[in-house]
Parts: sequence; C-alpha cells; structure tokens
Amino acid sequence: MLEKLHAHIDAHFEAHLDRVRRFVRQPSVSADGTGMKEMAELLATEIVRLGGRAEVCPTAGHPVVYGEFGVGAPKTLLVYGMYDVQPVVGEVWVVPPFGGEIIDFPPHGLCLVSRGATNQKGPLASFFNVLETCRAVTGTFPVNLKLVIEGEEELGSPHLPDFIRANKARLTADAVYFPAFSQDLTGKVVMYLGVKGIVFFELVCRGGEWGGPTTRAVHGSNAVWFHSPTWRLIHALSTMLAPDQKHILVDGFYDEVEPPGEEDRELLERLAATFNPETSLQAHEVRRFKYDLSGVDLLKKYLYQPTLNIDGIISGHTAEGTKTVLPHEARAKLDCRLVPRMRPDLTIRRIREHLDRHGFGDIELVPHDAYPWAKTSVRAGVVQALIKSFRDLGFEPEIWPHLGGSAPFYLFSDELGLPFAMGGLGHGGRAHSPNEYATVEGLRLFEKSAVNFLYNFAAG
Amino acid sequence: MLEKLHAHIDAHFEAHLDRVRRFVRQPSVSADGTGMKEMAELLATEIVRLGGRAEVCPTAGHPVVYGEFGVGAPKTLLVYGMYDVQPVVGEVWVVPPFGGEIIDFPPHGLCLVSRGATNQKGPLASFFNVLETCRAVTGTFPVNLKLVIEGEEELGSPHLPDFIRANKARLTADAVYFPAFSQDLTGKVVMYLGVKGIVFFELVCRGGEWGGPTTRAVHGSNAVWFHSPTWRLIHALSTMLAPDQKHILVDGFYDEVEPPGEEDRELLERLAATFNPETSLQAHEVRRFKYDLSGVDLLKKYLYQPTLNIDGIISGHTAEGTKTVLPHEARAKLDCRLVPRMRPDLTIRRIREHLDRHGFGDIELVPHDAYPWAKTSVRAGVVQALIKSFRDLGFEPEIWPHLGGSAPFYLFSDELGLPFAMGGLGHGGRAHSPNEYATVEGLRLFEKSAVNFLYNFAAG
Repeated sequence: MLEKLHAHIDAHFEAHLDRVRRFVRQPSVSADGTGMKEMAELLATEIVRLGGRAEVCPTAGHPVVYGEFGVGAPKTLLVYGMYDVQPVVGEVWVVPPFGGEIIDFPPHGLCLVSRGATNQKGPLASFFNVLETCRAVTGTFPVNLKLVIEGEEELGSPHLPDFIRANKARLTADAVYFPAFSQDLTGKVVMYLGVKGIVFFELVCRGGEWGGPTTRAVHGSNAVWFHSPTWRLIHALSTMLAPDQKHILVDGFYDEVEPPGEEDRELLERLAATFNPETSLQAHEVRRFKYDLSGVDLLKKYLYQPTLNIDGIISGHTAEGTKTVLPHEARAKLDCRLVPRMRPDLTIRRIREHLDRHGFGDIELVPHDAYPWAKTSVRAGVVQALIKSFRDLGFEPEIWPHLGGSAPFYLFSDELGLPFAMGGLGHGGRAHSPNEYATVEGLRLFEKSAVNFLYNFAAG
Repeated sequence: MLEKLHAHIDAHFEAHLDRVRRFVRQPSVSADGTGMKEMAELLATEIVRLGGRAEVCPTAGHPVVYGEFGVGAPKTLLVYGMYDVQPVVGEVWVVPPFGGEIIDFPPHGLCLVSRGATNQKGPLASFFNVLETCRAVTGTFPVNLKLVIEGEEELGSPHLPDFIRANKARLTADAVYFPAFSQDLTGKVVMYLGVKGIVFFELVCRGGEWGGPTTRAVHGSNAVWFHSPTWRLIHALSTMLAPDQKHILVDGFYDEVEPPGEEDRELLERLAATFNPETSLQAHEVRRFKYDLSGVDLLKKYLYQPTLNIDGIISGHTAEGTKTVLPHEARAKLDCRLVPRMRPDLTIRRIREHLDRHGFGDIELVPHDAYPWAKTSVRAGVVQALIKSFRDLGFEPEIWPHLGGSAPFYLFSDELGLPFAMGGLGHGGRAHSPNEYATVEGLRLFEKSAVNFLYNFAAG
C-alpha cells in the first residue's frame, strides 16, 4: 500500500508542487492583515475539496480554520498548523517574495524560494498533498483527522488558547501532529519531543516618592543630588544574576526544576554521540560556551537549566552624539525559559518577591506572554510512528528530549491532555528572513514520510 | 556720565530693540548650517559700523567672528559670545521662531519671543547696543575690547579650543566677559563664578573571545549556554556606583577632589540664606534629594561632589511587543561632572583601570567630550565690577561659587590665564524650547547694567 501511495506522489508531483505554490502565492501576513481572509478561505475550500468539513472560526484576532475528516477509523489525529507568515517589508529577495518561484538556489539545488516556503506553508500544503494522495489511492484516510490551522502563530498565538478552551469538546483525539521539515543542511533528521516554557516581562523603573525625576529627563548635572531610575534598574538587575551569568540569584527560582528523568538520560546518552557543540557555536558566531563542558554535561545545561535573559534595555539619550540628561525612566525586557517542572506564575511571583525583598518594590513588573513547557514521551505512539516513518525511508533521527526554544504546545499536552509530535522529512531555511526556501526534493520526501507516519500511527 | 549713558539708552531704545530683532531674525542654526554665513557677516558688519576691526576666521567647522576695538585704554576686556542657536524643526511656536516679534507674553509681560532671544543673541545684540551707546555719548569706550564670537556653542564648541590656541598672541586681555541674563523669574540676580568640568564617554560591551554573540543578536533561548553582553555591561556598571547612588566606587575617583576653600565657604554661608531647595525640587518635578540635608550641607554636596551619571543605555529589542533575542552588543553613555581639582584625563584613566581590575578589560571605553572645571575668585576685578553693576541698579546678587553644569571656560582661565565673569541684568527663558523669550524691560536693564560693568571694570 505504501508503495502505491509513494508512486502516486511521484506521478502527481507536479500537481502537488502547484498546490504548494498556490499556498505561498497567497500572501497572509498576520502582522498587518494582508491576505489573511483570502488565505483562510483558500484553506477551507481545499478541505472541502478533499472531502472534509471546514469552518472558518472567528477569534478576537485572525480566524482559526477548523477542518474535520471523519472516516470511521479507530484513531483520530489532531493536526495543528499555521497559515500566517512574517512580513517582507524592506527585505530584498532574489525573486518576488510571494511569487512561489522554483529556481536553482545554490548550494541547496532546486528550491521553492518564497515567504512561507518552510515556515510553514510548505509543510502545510505538502500535508494537504498527502491527504490528496490517500484519498486518490485508497478513497479514504487511515485515521480520522481534525485540523486546527491558526493565523496568529507569528504574533505569538494570542487567541489560540481561547479557541482550544472553547472547542475542547470537539477536539478529542488520540494525538496531535505538527507538519514541519526536520532535516538540517546536512540531511540529518533532528526531532524534538517537547518545548521549554516562557515568561516574557518588562521591568520599569521610574522616578517617584523614592527620588529621581518623575515626569521628564532633566539636565544631567542634577545627578549630583537627584537619584537616577537608570542606575536603580541596573542595581536591581545586578542582584538577579551572578556576574559569571551561570546562576540566577532569585530566591526559589530553581525550586521546581527537575533533573532529567531516566528516559531523558537515555536520550541524552544517544544524542551526545551525534551532537556537535562546534556547529552551534559556528552557526551563531559565538566563540565559547558559558560552561567548560561537553557531551551530556553540556546538553544537560542547555536543556534543563532555566534562563533569565535581557532581550532589551533602554533609557535616556540613545541617539548619536553628546547629550547629558538624568532620565526619568528605564525599561528592560526580559524572558525566562522554563524547564520541567517550572511554572510561569511561580516564576513571575518569585521575581516580584525578589525585587521587593531587595528594596526595589517601586520597580514595576509588567508580565506579557507566558506559557508552560510541554513534553511528550519518546514512547508515545505518535512519536514512535514518526520515528518509524523516518527509519522506513532510511533516516535515523537525532532525538532531543525537547527544544531550547518555546512554543505553546501545552495547549495540546495540558489543556487537551494529548501527546504530540512534530516533523517530517524535508529541508528548508531562512525562516523570517529574505529568500526563505524549501528544497523541491525535500517537499517530495516530506510527503512520503508523512504518508508513512499516518499509516504507522493508525497501526500503532 | 553713567546717567548720560542711561539716558541715551532710554532715548534710543526703539532703535536698540531693532538691532536685537535684526540679530534674531537672521537664522543661524549650527546643527544644519542654516544662515551661519549670513550671521557671521552681519556681526562683522556691525563691528565695523561701530568703529572696530572685524575678521571672520575660518575653523574646521563654523567660523569664529573676531573683533577688536583698540581705544588706547589701560584695560582690555575679552568678550566671549556665541552666534549660533538651536534648531526649531518640529517645534510649535505662538509666533514664527525667526520672526523677532514683540508680544504680550503672560505672565512675563512684553517680550521678544524668538529663537535666540535669551540664548544668546538677545544678550549679544544688547551688548552691541551698549557699545553703540558708549560711542555715541563719549566717542570712545572705557576699555579696549576684543570680541570672540563662536558659531558652534550649541554643538559643544568643538573648534573653539583650536581657535583660542592658534590666536593666543592676539587674545591678551585683563579679563573675559560673557554677556548673559542673570535674573530669574522672580527678578532675583543669580551669579555663578565658575563651572564644573565634564567627561562624556561611552561604554560598549560586545560579544568576543570572552563569549556571547559577536556579530548579531541570536535567538533568546541561547542565553542558557551563551554569555550576554547586556548582562555583562550591567554587572560592570553595578560595580561603579553604590546602590544608594551616593558614592562612586571607582578607585581613586575622589583623589583630587578638594573641599571648598575659605572663600567658597564664606560664599556658601551667604548663599544658604537665600537658596531654597524646594524651588529646585519643584522646577525638576523631583520629590526628594539623595541626601537628607539642607542649607550649606546640601549645597556642598551639589557643588563639590563629582557625578557618574548614565545619560543613556541601549541594547537589544527596545520596540513594542515581544521579541526574544540575546543581543550581541550593549552601549551606555555616561558623563562625570568634575569638581575642583579633578582632571579629565585622570578620571577617564581611573574608570578604565577600574574596569580592567574588575575583569571587564574587554569593555570598550570611548571618550567623547572632555574639559576641566574653571573658576574665578569672587575678589577678581572683573567679578567685583559685575557685582557692583548689579548693586548700582539696586540688585543684590545671589552668588554661587560655581554652576552645577559645565562650559568650556577653562579656555579662558587655563589656556589664556584670565579671570572671567558672566551675566547682567535681564531675564529670559525657554532656551532650547519653543517660545524662547526675553522680556523687553530686561533688555533695557541689561544694557544699563552692562554699561555700568564696563565703567566699573575700567575703574577697578
């Protein structure tokens, strides 16, 4: 059966590429709303054309496209996708960014070069090609499918939680799947079984009863007898992280941090064999790690330590030239990456308590985004089905217990109580940048691996 | 004689106002060069018309206008002035900013409302009116005069040092005088006998061999294993000033700081009688001083303590919204106000040594502007002549040993070895702001006090 399905993919690959190009040619920039309505309607039309039931569900922001393919199969897969892309304003491309052109793109070979090619319309359209393939060859699907395709991923998914909570009843399933390309530049398949959580917040120090200018910057000579909110914020921050940047000094910050469990330790041992720290240093143009460690020990720091990062800080005169002012306000944006089993609310509370205890009760803490970490066991059926789909095609995946970054997968793991998996063969790059691309051969490989994944999951 | 001169001022005051308006109607914005050439020529023409010798001296920036009135008098006064003004771009005025209009301007009464009215074309043109008065009534001047009128004061006088050093031979004089309005809103005359010095510099922390991203910001999740230049700059800064902001922790920073001498202590005792700290808090919208002190003790802190002020700091993502990055660079602009007998070179060197000693040798220290403090004794003839000119007209000046701010008067005191004095009756406000003004009655009072000053100085 899989051979027949793969043969169909090869035989109809030109038509499949046309679908991918149709998806990327429809602009859908969530930041300014360009083409969002049209893209949502395009998706709904495609779902209906493939025999599904589609609904464009309004939210307080851009709508969620919901689709259902009920085929009476024993298992149900919830597919999470996104239809929005990053803006292209001010970018210089070798092709029109919404042109969907396929060109020779050294050193990657023949590529679709287009906004959304890899993040994530390429994988999404390819998944629709997989559905077309199953339906054309078998008349049905190996699993029931529910599609949740949001239009605000690039904005931080602000209204997805509302949608998930409001639709819990109809979002029952056995697992969640996120179509994505898993191969790196060298062709290696890299799998992540989870994500870290995040809290993003601002610290704002303003002049007030404690001292300092309250309404505007004043002449810098007054620093001799008035306090500075800028210095105050700097002193407050300096109490929160050790100077070697290895240890967060906020009381209780690590209380819920859990060392890797047995399953993770096994994964780490295997991961250390293929993980090359030099690649990471080179990719980021960094000369050395904070830690003089390697292998499993370095991976443990990377995956199981939380962060307290300053994303930005600003105060006073920052333009060119000399201007001497005593600022009335200083602002810093920070984020903490949360590892198992940290909680966003406890993290924020401890930072607040730390500031209060150190005499900085006047410094305002403004929480912005926050969500917890999420993980699925490597033993979960949906994960094993994905691993098998790689192996079926001759690829041994490098498996990471979770990502260093964050995504709101807790909505599936915590809110819906479902295991999740993400990925597929294929390679793309330059997400959020000019000349975003996906290799044409990768698009074909993705379809084959995703077909296998669906059948593996159904059989698992 | 003074009566005759004052009568001449009153009799010709309409014509005198016309000169002031002619000066302010000629735009002369050093920041973008608008009208600078025309203003320099206007000044040279006026000097010649008053019987002097004028020269427009090129510099690497805007020219210095030099003038001489040699009348064979025993004493010579060097008059320092400025002919450039701040830009008006984007400002909203009640009159055209270069219109030279005289309007009722509550609560100040009849005012010249114009860019330059108080800073400093109003006082400068009024001083030309004084010269016209002396010449018309007496046919000569009580002192020889040398005029140095620069066109880059609003830019920080970058080329005035070159001019002064290159022209030392012909800049011989007995004292220096800077025409300015000395009366505050209430009519009180406030005199300053000197200025603090300043060093303005940047601290720049970039990723490098020590760690951190070296060429661009990277994804914030990497903060778990890469260093942050932002945190590093914050930790470096936090070692430089005590958290209560009362003491600079840089070794040797205070070594050259001198307590007030006997003359200054006497001035402070008198000053404390009229100095009202509440006025300063209110004017700057600040609730409290750093120090729980008053009177002489508070004044001592204000005048005899150096500062280490952060004028601005910037790093990473500072725009609206969430963006998690690990920045590759952090920059802070700082200035130190230098009190007697601190030296700019030693101050910079000690900050550099402090950073090195605390392990921050990689943080770049970029010196920008720097010049020393400058003071003239209250007993100097030129100062006594100015004080007497106020008393002549019934005003008892409040005398400050020096200003909290800075100006490059060391060029006169140190380079030329001359005592200096600044001021005159008159009141203006809103310098550097829309609706800059000078009261018409203040312009008249300035002329009378400046006539008296010239005669007092000649006789002293």
